[in-house]
Amino acid sequence: MAGGSIPSTPLLKDELDIVIPTIRNLDFLEMWRPFFQQYHLIIVQDGDPSRTIKVPEGFDYELYNRNDINRILGPKASCISFKDSACRCFGYMVSKKKYIFTIDDDCFVAKDPSGKEINALEQHIKNLLSPSSPFFFNTLYDPYREGADFVRGYPFSLREGAPTAVSHGLWLNIPDYDAPTQLVKPLERNTRYVDAVLTIPKGTLFPMCGMNLAFNRELIGPAMYFGLMGDGQPIGRYDDMWAGWCTKVICDHLGLGVKTGLPYIWHSKASNPFVNLRKEYNGIYWQEEIIPFFQTAVLPKECTSVQKCYLELSKQVKAKLSKVDPYFDKLADAMVTWIEAWDELNPSGSAAAAVNGSAKK
Amino acid sequence: MAGGSIPSTPLLKDELDIVIPTIRNLDFLEMWRPFFQQYHLIIVQDGDPSRTIKVPEGFDYELYNRNDINRILGPKASCISFKDSACRCFGYMVSKKKYIFTIDDDCFVAKDPSGKEINALEQHIKNLLSPSSPFFFNTLYDPYREGADFVRGYPFSLREGAPTAVSHGLWLNIPDYDAPTQLVKPLERNTRYVDAVLTIPKGTLFPMCGMNLAFNRELIGPAMYFGLMGDGQPIGRYDDMWAGWCTKVICDHLGLGVKTGLPYIWHSKASNPFVNLRKEYNGIYWQEEIIPFFQTAVLPKECTSVQKCYLELSKQVKAKLSKVDPYFDKLADAMVTWIEAWDELNPSGSAAAAVNGSAKK
Repeated sequence: MAGGSIPSTPLLKDELDIVIPTIRNLDFLEMWRPFFQQYHLIIVQDGDPSRTIKVPEGFDYELYNRNDINRILGPKASCISFKDSACRCFGYMVSKKKYIFTIDDDCFVAKDPSGKEINALEQHIKNLLSPSSPFFFNTLYDPYREGADFVRGYPFSLREGAPTAVSHGLWLNIPDYDAPTQLVKPLERNTRYVDAVLTIPKGTLFPMCGMNLAFNRELIGPAMYFGLMGDGQPIGRYDDMWAGWCTKVICDHLGLGVKTGLPYIWHSKASNPFVNLRKEYNGIYWQEEIIPFFQTAVLPKECTSVQKCYLELSKQVKAKLSKVDPYFDKLADAMVTWIEAWDELNPSGSAAAAVNGSAKK
Repeated sequence: MAGGSIPSTPLLKDELDIVIPTIRNLDFLEMWRPFFQQYHLIIVQDGDPSRTIKVPEGFDYELYNRNDINRILGPKASCISFKDSACRCFGYMVSKKKYIFTIDDDCFVAKDPSGKEINALEQHIKNLLSPSSPFFFNTLYDPYREGADFVRGYPFSLREGAPTAVSHGLWLNIPDYDAPTQLVKPLERNTRYVDAVLTIPKGTLFPMCGMNLAFNRELIGPAMYFGLMGDGQPIGRYDDMWAGWCTKVICDHLGLGVKTGLPYIWHSKASNPFVNLRKEYNGIYWQEEIIPFFQTAVLPKECTSVQKCYLELSKQVKAKLSKVDPYFDKLADAMVTWIEAWDELNPSGSAAAAVNGSAKK
């Protein structure tokens, strides 16, 4: 335990939940113990609910398996994916905290170039608690970071920035490649530590990976739906991408910021590229139409809360993507179910979101 | 001389000019000798033309002072600034090469974290010779760099990227701050080496600094006009910003890419913040209207060459910014003069640009 260097009360200790989707014993938590032990964990057990998931001693957690999800959501449980890590978004929904950090169980503590272990959660919190700069690009990266600022030519009226809704972290070792790239470059490892955090500009979409991700649940939670993937669905490995596209469009509409860059985690194991290809092939094809759809999606002024934005997006998905595949008709319905379930479990959330995220265009 | 590690024939040796605006002896070139000596230099002498600028032995150069500019351009010389480093753009105009690298004479060779001297020009050339990715954000930065690629969720149809028109390099030591920030943080130094090159997304403006900048003159040269600054003008230190805004709007329209990040140079000396404040104060005020103007500027489809785009922009400047200050009326006229002078000195340039930069929207 490297606990000596960790502050006794870590940042946002009582305001953040760590959400972990898993199908196996959570031995990986041992390495994270100094960084996670004081936080509350929400474990979403995927697959066979009769299996017992072992959690190392000393962690404070709640665990939900498929039976729990069905019991809590009733018929609305249909919007939560099964046999896919997309099930993690159930954890976002049952959390009562302001912030969420989600991490995969094959992700370990990375080291910075000086050899120091990276406290990924602490960096995510720093990212979330400082503003973003989505309206103009700052060439020295995050202007709010120590030792940095806005450069010459950056409009002063924009230097207050925007509230940060999402912090997207990266991965050393195994990069987050799709199956074709995995197949072509099986030995490629990410060894480049880029010491930067930057805001993804307004109007620009990005591929959001769910492996190492944090967000402000109050600001953007209801947009973090990981879609219908896995069991019974014609697609997998696009759960986080779908959430990222929806989230970015809504953040842009509501004047919220999305950051990417630090922190890195150590991604230990490449998933099987042949299995991945089977999961991905529809997504690889469909994304050629999905992305232009999101790039041109416009939300009306009346959409002043995340929920309203999300329901509007579901309508547009139904209207414009159902022609790509009937799957999107089903997905659009699931998006509505997700919001209904969210509001049921978070009765005051809808109003709070409307107050916090004022619509700027 | 660290010449041993430098290839005997450096990249683009006969296709690139180094443009340096100066008012003093160019002793700074000694440090750059291993990297610059095989290239051709275009030195634009600012200020008193009767002064003699000393260039270290062994460099291949041509030097233009104000008398030369007046002689070559005649009445059109009015578009070239005097007593301001904006005069450098004259060098872009008289060059006959495909690529330009421009650097200030207070910029020295920086070192990377391993202590190795950075060949800034070589990195710029790499940036310019590999494509950009302006249409979608890649979270692992430049996907064309060794050891990197496009991440999962990046549309395959966009992986060819776009031709790179501009490579914007950064600065260690003295950051490129405006006068107010210099005054508030006189001791701040940039010590963070961020090992990344990234494409500035389509639709996003950025503050382009002229201190350490390279571009493809055939693709974007006529947009690299550094405006009317310095002597007799109500503004200074916005020359590169102006060029950057115009360039980015035109690159976005023509489907060309703009990269920022590596390489770093070592910026040795902060300019006087009080003098800078006098030069900048109008710009600081005006940019609050200029930036929204450029953010919303739309170029019609008929603008298929950089020249056509630039003349259209000049019309829009006249129509929409003259109300901010009569200066913009004068600037809009100078933009037209600049293009006339460019076409006079580059008789085949207009047609070439139209062929190379096909309009994509």
